[in-house]
Amino acid sequence: MERPADPGASLARLPGKDPHNNPGDVSVDFPVSVVLPAGGTGERTGLQTPKQFCGLMGRPLISYTAQAFERVSWIQCVVVVVATESLALMRDIAQRYRHSKVRVVPGGSTRHRSIRRGVQALREPEEQVGAGTPKVVIIHDAVRPFVDEDMLSKIAMAAKEHGAAGAIRPLVSTVIATTSEGYLDHSLERAKYRASEMPQGFTYEVIHQAYQKCTDYDLDYGTECLHLALQYCGTNAKLIEGPPTLWKVTYKRDLAAAESIIKESLSQSSCVLTGDCPSALSLAASLQKAFTTQHMDLDIIPNLQGDHANYLLKEWNFIQISVNGSLSEVKALLASLQAAERALLNPVVVVWVHLSGADLPSIGETATEPAAISDLASPRLENWKTFCCTVSTSGSVRSGCEKRVKCGVIQKSKSLFKMC
Amino acid sequence: MERPADPGASLARLPGKDPHNNPGDVSVDFPVSVVLPAGGTGERTGLQTPKQFCGLMGRPLISYTAQAFERVSWIQCVVVVVATESLALMRDIAQRYRHSKVRVVPGGSTRHRSIRRGVQALREPEEQVGAGTPKVVIIHDAVRPFVDEDMLSKIAMAAKEHGAAGAIRPLVSTVIATTSEGYLDHSLERAKYRASEMPQGFTYEVIHQAYQKCTDYDLDYGTECLHLALQYCGTNAKLIEGPPTLWKVTYKRDLAAAESIIKESLSQSSCVLTGDCPSALSLAASLQKAFTTQHMDLDIIPNLQGDHANYLLKEWNFIQISVNGSLSEVKALLASLQAAERALLNPVVVVWVHLSGADLPSIGETATEPAAISDLASPRLENWKTFCCTVSTSGSVRSGCEKRVKCGVIQKSKSLFKMC
Repeated sequence: MERPADPGASLARLPGKDPHNNPGDVSVDFPVSVVLPAGGTGERTGLQTPKQFCGLMGRPLISYTAQAFERVSWIQCVVVVVATESLALMRDIAQRYRHSKVRVVPGGSTRHRSIRRGVQALREPEEQVGAGTPKVVIIHDAVRPFVDEDMLSKIAMAAKEHGAAGAIRPLVSTVIATTSEGYLDHSLERAKYRASEMPQGFTYEVIHQAYQKCTDYDLDYGTECLHLALQYCGTNAKLIEGPPTLWKVTYKRDLAAAESIIKESLSQSSCVLTGDCPSALSLAASLQKAFTTQHMDLDIIPNLQGDHANYLLKEWNFIQISVNGSLSEVKALLASLQAAERALLNPVVVVWVHLSGADLPSIGETATEPAAISDLASPRLENWKTFCCTVSTSGSVRSGCEKRVKCGVIQKSKSLFKMC
Repeated sequence: MERPADPGASLARLPGKDPHNNPGDVSVDFPVSVVLPAGGTGERTGLQTPKQFCGLMGRPLISYTAQAFERVSWIQCVVVVVATESLALMRDIAQRYRHSKVRVVPGGSTRHRSIRRGVQALREPEEQVGAGTPKVVIIHDAVRPFVDEDMLSKIAMAAKEHGAAGAIRPLVSTVIATTSEGYLDHSLERAKYRASEMPQGFTYEVIHQAYQKCTDYDLDYGTECLHLALQYCGTNAKLIEGPPTLWKVTYKRDLAAAESIIKESLSQSSCVLTGDCPSALSLAASLQKAFTTQHMDLDIIPNLQGDHANYLLKEWNFIQISVNGSLSEVKALLASLQAAERALLNPVVVVWVHLSGADLPSIGETATEPAAISDLASPRLENWKTFCCTVSTSGSVRSGCEKRVKCGVIQKSKSLFKMC
């Protein structure tokens, strides 16, 4: 049984994380849209708020899932199907986080009825984006926020070729058949079975036909779209092994798990701005080595001009090295980040390093510097973290202010500067 | 399919959490010992440290699991089976966290070989505790730390009656059979199948005989003890539905999930010490009401003398109300907690409330008070958190120092005092 060594392997493709993402050689050159049933009540989390609306670092779970689809260029439209009482909430979320591909529609009384409603909506003129009725419909769960472009393209391609496709995972537990009296009857041979997960993909014809032909019993009690495609269209879905991050946020504890994945992903890389000063470049090179020992990436760029401007769209952590003690460079950086509205989706971390040729003064003497950078960021948005430290060319490090100490990149940066 | 509304329901029985725990009418009056295979390499977490040794709030996961068994009075011995290279580490953990029922033995090359080794060890004179070879052996995973006494007694009783018993859970995903070419063959009817989980229990005769008779192939490739009992002893295990907290810590994200469960559990109750002053009692009563609105329990006691001393063994959060502004009561509380070594296993939170009849002074005027209580606790152990606030009888609240702000009880206390 395949047991991937590290679920982190898929994290590089977290929404908004990596524009270098290259989903193999496949290219999706046909219209694909998405149906996201999000009508669940979240009874298993034990929370009053349905889990798709629970906050992960302040942003609702469903917004992460929507973003995972929206950033994929070949996806046209994401139909989010919610309970009638959640329509206003979901529309507010779509607007607040600028989900331009999201359309919100009211769902039915069961999961299948909601998905059917979503599939129908893809045909309605007011929901159509771009090329109209899609060739392939991807169905996913609102509470699986970590689906990546690679998996989506595999599902879309396989669905187009075979009519239907679905993600699978190895079984975590042995599956057993029980007697009616509650005793072990037999256990299944694990290797022959798989857990059926999401996403699943269907040609529009197959999923439309399946929902046309299926019975009320299916709509009320069924759960598995692949099963409907098999039963009513004779389509045996192609199965595709997915990464462990496809897991479904089910219990309250899973919210903490999802948050830990997002935090880790956001701490995996950083970008250092050096200007054109040789000593800044030299410090950046040492820093890059130190980051590598921590399995973190650090890109070195002079500034955010020209092609480097794309770092504004892919990076969440910035280290500005300054040699003249002036705040002008870091002010410009903060202004650029603000113009790009980066802090809307995830926390943005800015570390300002004052490279000093002199021996380091005591905290008291430079208290104005940390205060100054803190002031720069604080009035803007919730999602800014700033940190200031002074590095002497003699090698000593003094850290200044931190707006919030609970930040992986800042904490790592502190120790890494000491390693340079 | 049963879907429990709230996994939190089982949290009240977290290790060390609730001495009122009443596991139904069953009483286990026969010798029971435990085998905990802990030889896994944790490849799926993507961490260098095997997950059973990863820290949850500073303490290794396996210590939580061991404690879950040790606190059950009718369990005699917990044999932890580890890889040879982890023997010293595990013995150190057992000593550091005072796991007096734990015996550490070296394992085999596979899970079944390790469990067999653990079962054999229960017969060896040097491993025997109390009544010798147990009537029932419970087998559990080192990485399922939240098993409670209720589940354990059900498993032990059923194992004694039926020869074997195992925990089951509803299937989270649809299970599908695949064709050899990777297509959907058919999906299983969810209601007829269950996921086989841990703990499992066996009479010593059954598990011993199963391991005597089974083949090398079983020992190398099998995973399911229930299956061996069926195949080699003709014993159909009794299956018992377990709570969702039985889940297995598998991926790195699960460590964050487990930590969130522990933190929540530790924040569910508190104990307030009032002395014999009527105004302190009155504040405590208001506080108790405010806690209830947050689904937290608050017990009111005058002090820790007599029967109230048992709070030292069951509670992690203490609120000392003081009317005379003296630190003597809170000093005595801290000394008692230290004598009971409470901070060894979990963080201990002490909130000191200075009930003032006067209007509240500004922060500056009473800065010595917060500093004083902070000084009391800080030099002792890592695991102490202290918080100080002054409550005026006119109703206003001023919070003083906090050693660490990231503490659920302290944060809740702050808002709750304002509700009183």
